[in-house]
Amino acid sequence: MTRTIAQQAELALLLEVATTPKPGNVDRHRDHDDLRFEHFLAGAVGASDGLRDLADPDGPPIGMAFERAVEGMSGQSGGNTQFGGLLLVAPLVRAAGLDRLTPDGATMIAERTGIEDAAGFYRAFEHVDVAVADPPDDMDALDVRRGSDALPEIRDRNLSLFDVLARSADHDGIAREWTNGFARTFDAADRLVTHDGPLLDRAADVFLELLAAEPDTFVAINHGPETARDVRERAEAARDGRLDPETLAEDLVAEGFNPGTTADLLAGGLFVALLRGAEV
Amino acid sequence: MTRTIAQQAELALLLEVATTPKPGNVDRHRDHDDLRFEHFLAGAVGASDGLRDLADPDGPPIGMAFERAVEGMSGQSGGNTQFGGLLLVAPLVRAAGLDRLTPDGATMIAERTGIEDAAGFYRAFEHVDVAVADPPDDMDALDVRRGSDALPEIRDRNLSLFDVLARSADHDGIAREWTNGFARTFDAADRLVTHDGPLLDRAADVFLELLAAEPDTFVAINHGPETARDVRERAEAARDGRLDPETLAEDLVAEGFNPGTTADLLAGGLFVALLRGAEV
Repeated sequence: MTRTIAQQAELALLLEVATTPKPGNVDRHRDHDDLRFEHFLAGAVGASDGLRDLADPDGPPIGMAFERAVEGMSGQSGGNTQFGGLLLVAPLVRAAGLDRLTPDGATMIAERTGIEDAAGFYRAFEHVDVAVADPPDDMDALDVRRGSDALPEIRDRNLSLFDVLARSADHDGIAREWTNGFARTFDAADRLVTHDGPLLDRAADVFLELLAAEPDTFVAINHGPETARDVRERAEAARDGRLDPETLAEDLVAEGFNPGTTADLLAGGLFVALLRGAEV
Repeated sequence: MTRTIAQQAELALLLEVATTPKPGNVDRHRDHDDLRFEHFLAGAVGASDGLRDLADPDGPPIGMAFERAVEGMSGQSGGNTQFGGLLLVAPLVRAAGLDRLTPDGATMIAERTGIEDAAGFYRAFEHVDVAVADPPDDMDALDVRRGSDALPEIRDRNLSLFDVLARSADHDGIAREWTNGFARTFDAADRLVTHDGPLLDRAADVFLELLAAEPDTFVAINHGPETARDVRERAEAARDGRLDPETLAEDLVAEGFNPGTTADLLAGGLFVALLRGAEV
């Protein structure tokens, strides 16, 4: 295998979007109206310099490398393609660069983030519109949508990126991964490595398993927790053979329900699986 | 636009394989039995280091950078994915790195290749199986399938990569581009830039126009000139609305006729179009 760690991360993003069916998301067979497959291709390629910084043990703080990846990702007209996927893989890629791609290794990277990482994260929101939840009343000053304007507050409170994400772990599935040992990501990777068949078919199975297991937080943010629970139940029916996954994919795209966080988790799982020897 | 020249080349390869319908080739909606969409994704990502060398005006000779790209491309289990596409874009990427991406600029790069470039080209065949034509009787010693074993002969005859490709221009569509000012590549780019609609839809139209215009040399090498002419005629019917392009795509895949050279020309056209401002 000649691919670098950064190239494996980029490939994981590409394999994620190519995976089909991936109900509700852009996949090899489905576009959204203004967010199309090619936007994800360009997003993954554009992120590659930031991914290289992330893979470099002597590279910049991961929050700054993440910002660079997001800036590169944004060089296409579709808008936000892989913000969540990049946030998830950021500590994983740095851990891999240190030859410590384990739950403990990635958690160490996450916990060691500092104010500069938080600053990079906030600045990243200035490159692309990302759907996020409203902050609690007492956290308006930390609203990520403020971008750089929130930085004085971040510095005053001495918050690391880990601290910032820990405050969102109850309602954001990526933040939750950061704070719980990347449990679902590594679990997805295990299943991607051990299942049989072409990698993209395995990835479609694992996506459905992930979506059936927990409500997607991106759906919850955009359409409310009840819709997220309903989507989860329908995914469970598809996983268990009571509903054709292709039908579910058609229906969710038509209804506008986009389980983007679950797609991000798949991207993270694919990255770990590739580094553990999953073949393309 | 934040993408580098090398990233635009990588993206061009990805957009090419995503273009659908692209009759006879792997595309967003179709796989071959052992050569699947994900192999092309991995091939494009793996080629990126070589593409970076190509884009660097102070980089290694383009034949050596091409070999590096092919080596990286080969890090997947599908076999040859983008050998021809990389051979076509190699002089274009170097020309772009010198800010001379014109037919004249690319031709200058092609004509200035030397023995080291030829050596890189021959070594590239050791990384992957590529379907090529049998050489004429008096050129057995130069058969590319000999790989490095042909190098003493190359040095004895003092052949540049341009010289080697000029000998194949009558039966290989990529070699022909190298020796005729990259005419079809730049023409495809013009049409990609000026057509309307999403870039991948424009690319599908341009692919059909290219396939309808001239017999595909990869089909001719693998199945004979008569088959290549027949495929061209059917593409013309599809271009003119007398045959559904989706039907032609299904039929050619089923028949095993793979117009790979035309896909390579599309990749080259996409690269030039991206550098000329075509938006994703």
